[in-house]
Amino acid sequence: MTQMTKPTLEVCLSPALVHLYNTKDVVVVIIDIFRATSTITAVLHNGAKCVIPVASVAECIELGKIIPNSITAGERDGKIAEGLQYGNSPLEYSPGFIADKTLVLTTTNGTRLLHMISGASEIVIGSFLNLTAVCSYLMSSGKNVLLACASWKDRFNLEDTLFAGAVVDRIGAEFSINCDSARAARHLYMCSEGNFREYLKDSSHYLRLSAYGLQDDLAYCATADLHPVVPVLKGKEIVVIN
Amino acid sequence: MTQMTKPTLEVCLSPALVHLYNTKDVVVVIIDIFRATSTITAVLHNGAKCVIPVASVAECIELGKIIPNSITAGERDGKIAEGLQYGNSPLEYSPGFIADKTLVLTTTNGTRLLHMISGASEIVIGSFLNLTAVCSYLMSSGKNVLLACASWKDRFNLEDTLFAGAVVDRIGAEFSINCDSARAARHLYMCSEGNFREYLKDSSHYLRLSAYGLQDDLAYCATADLHPVVPVLKGKEIVVIN
Repeated sequence: MTQMTKPTLEVCLSPALVHLYNTKDVVVVIIDIFRATSTITAVLHNGAKCVIPVASVAECIELGKIIPNSITAGERDGKIAEGLQYGNSPLEYSPGFIADKTLVLTTTNGTRLLHMISGASEIVIGSFLNLTAVCSYLMSSGKNVLLACASWKDRFNLEDTLFAGAVVDRIGAEFSINCDSARAARHLYMCSEGNFREYLKDSSHYLRLSAYGLQDDLAYCATADLHPVVPVLKGKEIVVIN
Repeated sequence: MTQMTKPTLEVCLSPALVHLYNTKDVVVVIIDIFRATSTITAVLHNGAKCVIPVASVAECIELGKIIPNSITAGERDGKIAEGLQYGNSPLEYSPGFIADKTLVLTTTNGTRLLHMISGASEIVIGSFLNLTAVCSYLMSSGKNVLLACASWKDRFNLEDTLFAGAVVDRIGAEFSINCDSARAARHLYMCSEGNFREYLKDSSHYLRLSAYGLQDDLAYCATADLHPVVPVLKGKEIVVIN
């Protein structure tokens, strides 16, 4: 019987640390719970053709003019950015509204991280909304995995790390783990006792966004498995793989 | 009665993130549990005149030649570095041996971080060995505080974060905290239930160093309050403040 070597599983807590990790031929999961990757997951499960993530408002407006049946979206400081049509809330994109459309979305932390990853086998969008679907995909891929937190302007954040910890807790036994970030993330997940929303109420991002009146968004983004799809990056588009 | 504003308390998880934090007029605690800051704490409590931290083996040898009654120390890959006299173990420096001597110590992670801090009100050396003494000092300083983890080649590590969490847990109520790293560190500390050694047995650094046979060192470095002194940087020398 052949001894199988388990693939590795690592967690990167900030884009400012991503250069420390090997991403070549690795499945990289981008995590930006409040709210980019949550919104992308919801939008694609609700029938959007694809999501195109862009870094700037100007690029978002430009692409919106070119791409048929597209809508432009993005926020700055909790409000729809000037010149764009919609915001970052997953609650804005019902199936009746978003089906078959292309969403051109500008985000700060998530998009930047996405563009920093090179040579990955696959770039996957992770959120609590598709937790189980992402875990199943990672298990079946057989590849090394890096869970990459978008964080907040390079600062560690609790919500992205908590999601990483949920993944490590669920599928870690199938991987080889020698990564203190992965261990810590799992411990935080265990602290939360599965009640993500309550746990995250004392976090910088929750406090900042709830000051904008976004409590419903935050509760939604902290809910597991509402949108069981696996979004992946294909060229410049994020599409559903399954 | 005047409303007092509490000073802030933040935690930086890696030298690669330290640029994100204000260090001007802040008390910065350098944390390198395995083993630089533990060794510095032990050496000073055991009567050394001072510790001079340097980055390179060559610089260590040079200073050793110049400074009277000095000894040179440092390891690379778990062994005494070529050309130096002693290693990084706190157990090497009994009072009978180290009293009144100057220890010129080369370390990688801790020294590098020390030299990255600018404009700090004070740079303090923190370890489990002087946990309570450091907490008391921070409480009495009335200054903003940054707990700065030396990490391992910029990678997050559990032991430095656990120490930061112990400090946050003990004195956090006296500070204003809006820092997810501080929250996470405290949660990890709570996971450990105060049994630092057991908690750290599943960490990258513990596994790496115990492979060199350094279990006694690791246990020592995970023991609270054996050496109740507050070492601070004065010019190029680390000396005891109290």
